[in-house]
Amino acid sequence: MRKVFNFSSGPSMLPETVLSQAAGEMLDYEGSGQSVMEMSHRSAVFEKIRDEAEELLFAVMNIPKNYKVLFLQGGASLQFSMVPLNLLPEGGVCDYIESGIWAAKAADEAEKYGCVARPASSRDSSYSRIPPLPPPSKGASYYHITTNNTICGTRYTQLPPTGPTPLVADMSSNILSEPVEVNKFGLIYAGAQKNLGPAGTTLVIIREDLIGKHRPETPLILRYDLHAQHKSTFNTPPCYGIYIIKKVLEDLIQKGGVKAAHSRNTEKAALLYDFLDRSQLFAGTAEKPHRSLMNVTYTLPTQELTRAFLAQAEAQGLVNLGGHKLVGGIRASIYNAMPIEGVQKLVSLMEDFEAHNIKHTPKAAQEN
Amino acid sequence: MRKVFNFSSGPSMLPETVLSQAAGEMLDYEGSGQSVMEMSHRSAVFEKIRDEAEELLFAVMNIPKNYKVLFLQGGASLQFSMVPLNLLPEGGVCDYIESGIWAAKAADEAEKYGCVARPASSRDSSYSRIPPLPPPSKGASYYHITTNNTICGTRYTQLPPTGPTPLVADMSSNILSEPVEVNKFGLIYAGAQKNLGPAGTTLVIIREDLIGKHRPETPLILRYDLHAQHKSTFNTPPCYGIYIIKKVLEDLIQKGGVKAAHSRNTEKAALLYDFLDRSQLFAGTAEKPHRSLMNVTYTLPTQELTRAFLAQAEAQGLVNLGGHKLVGGIRASIYNAMPIEGVQKLVSLMEDFEAHNIKHTPKAAQEN
Repeated sequence: MRKVFNFSSGPSMLPETVLSQAAGEMLDYEGSGQSVMEMSHRSAVFEKIRDEAEELLFAVMNIPKNYKVLFLQGGASLQFSMVPLNLLPEGGVCDYIESGIWAAKAADEAEKYGCVARPASSRDSSYSRIPPLPPPSKGASYYHITTNNTICGTRYTQLPPTGPTPLVADMSSNILSEPVEVNKFGLIYAGAQKNLGPAGTTLVIIREDLIGKHRPETPLILRYDLHAQHKSTFNTPPCYGIYIIKKVLEDLIQKGGVKAAHSRNTEKAALLYDFLDRSQLFAGTAEKPHRSLMNVTYTLPTQELTRAFLAQAEAQGLVNLGGHKLVGGIRASIYNAMPIEGVQKLVSLMEDFEAHNIKHTPKAAQEN
Repeated sequence: MRKVFNFSSGPSMLPETVLSQAAGEMLDYEGSGQSVMEMSHRSAVFEKIRDEAEELLFAVMNIPKNYKVLFLQGGASLQFSMVPLNLLPEGGVCDYIESGIWAAKAADEAEKYGCVARPASSRDSSYSRIPPLPPPSKGASYYHITTNNTICGTRYTQLPPTGPTPLVADMSSNILSEPVEVNKFGLIYAGAQKNLGPAGTTLVIIREDLIGKHRPETPLILRYDLHAQHKSTFNTPPCYGIYIIKKVLEDLIQKGGVKAAHSRNTEKAALLYDFLDRSQLFAGTAEKPHRSLMNVTYTLPTQELTRAFLAQAEAQGLVNLGGHKLVGGIRASIYNAMPIEGVQKLVSLMEDFEAHNIKHTPKAAQEN
């Protein structure tokens, strides 16, 4: 049992078995006499790790054969530029659904390269929901969504009607948390630091026919075709991150794969949302149909109560529960590696906190 | 004693004590209850690691106060674009010295952004030396050098006469290997995977007056000013890499700092170069005045002998000695963390190999 439950929005918890194995192999990976951190990225021993990580991801996400898996650097933030540099021709048009703060940042970056339509936004409702999803703009090169919105705690439950327009998704905060039909997407990207592994590795899953459409001015290091040709070793990749991702995928498969993770995640999220729905003190901020399974966002009536709650949580080993600095409040990020015990402990604290802090409110208000 | 000596050009060996400590702290860093891989990059416990890594680097490299240290991603290859995007105005001119294959690649990438002068090149001599260094072109925004050339095994022993033109250096393969007067440089960058830590972290040391000169179209994630303002957490940084860098710096300081490392490196390199200079079979490829202390490149008379030598080396636990695929031959990368025992073992193998393989050549040829 972990002595601290870390509710950070990312980097966040990793499976304990993964960390134990990594510790055990730190000085000598499988008899190679080397740490994975020391291995040449061109050595057979590392190439096997990279190949296995790729194969495991193909298996666990059921990725069709006409896709490539790339392990890159720079986080989702660098993908905000790489996507248009590789998919949007000079003078082209693309669609971005503005479902959250990161979704808007992705659109802002794309505007440096062409005409960005924002056919739907939930900015007016403080991104508390996914907006209705229109079809693509005429001639759009791609259609970009953010499948889970980490800051405001919402998630897509259905995909937009994009037809033949490639659907591009930032899945940083919910990849591997629920089954995804990869064949519905042209490109999926995700920073590793939530459900995949440590910060510093970025996953890209790209349909082969979308590779090689980069603009002429694209820096070599930002071209998907070169990374695909070199199987993620066009330059020195984040080798240790890829190794940890491999271990996280092995652990996920042993625990029943994405389907089983989804059912655990649904159960964990329900514990929190059910309590929020009956609470007189805590209030969820995301609209019910669009609630995230990964980031549960809520508030208390005053900043004083929020501070007191966060302090009590920290004292109990429930850490990093503060909301994003732009929105405040509380955010429980409960990624795949968060054990249900962590969520139970959090709900139990919320119950205690409510019982203690609502005692002076009128009785009627306390009835549920 | 390590059971394998890894002569890879990078990623390469790390100090054994660093790896042991990392293994011991993998599940619980200093009582935080978290692995460093799991920590929020906005948590106090991680910010302390980042701050300490920064402070240690300032101390160990004697970096003046008017410089910023940044821990980024993407390797030196991404710096090939970030440098011109941040330092070269529209229509500007910059100088690149073409002292090696990576130096030429850096210049090629910069050409996407303006007029790149290549006032000196050693391409005609297969990059076996550093070319004579002319003063900067008129109006040059910066002057770029590669202080150690990993593939061909050369290094700068004096700096170009750049006057007030900012000197920019790729120090990926010799940072921390010898004392550097940082105040002579406008910007220094280095991929971590040779002397600093694991692959996936890129160090940038930049003089403050050069920050904020980016072009308007620069992606936010590639702007030095934003990374500097946010102390390397503008986006999620490669936290674990920064932590390992901190440990490598602590270890370096304990072993006497850069000056002591330089004297160890000189001793290690001399073992190899002295043998090469008296060998009848092995031949060094770099010109003597420009020989690298980090990458010792040499050849055998035939590919058959090269293959046989590499196989014997591997059997003795001396791994990754093959030269870069573009040049072939043999390359012993002997970064800070390579113990002298590794070099002694390599030289001893070379002596045996020579004694065995030169026995049928005329006696005269065997005399030195």
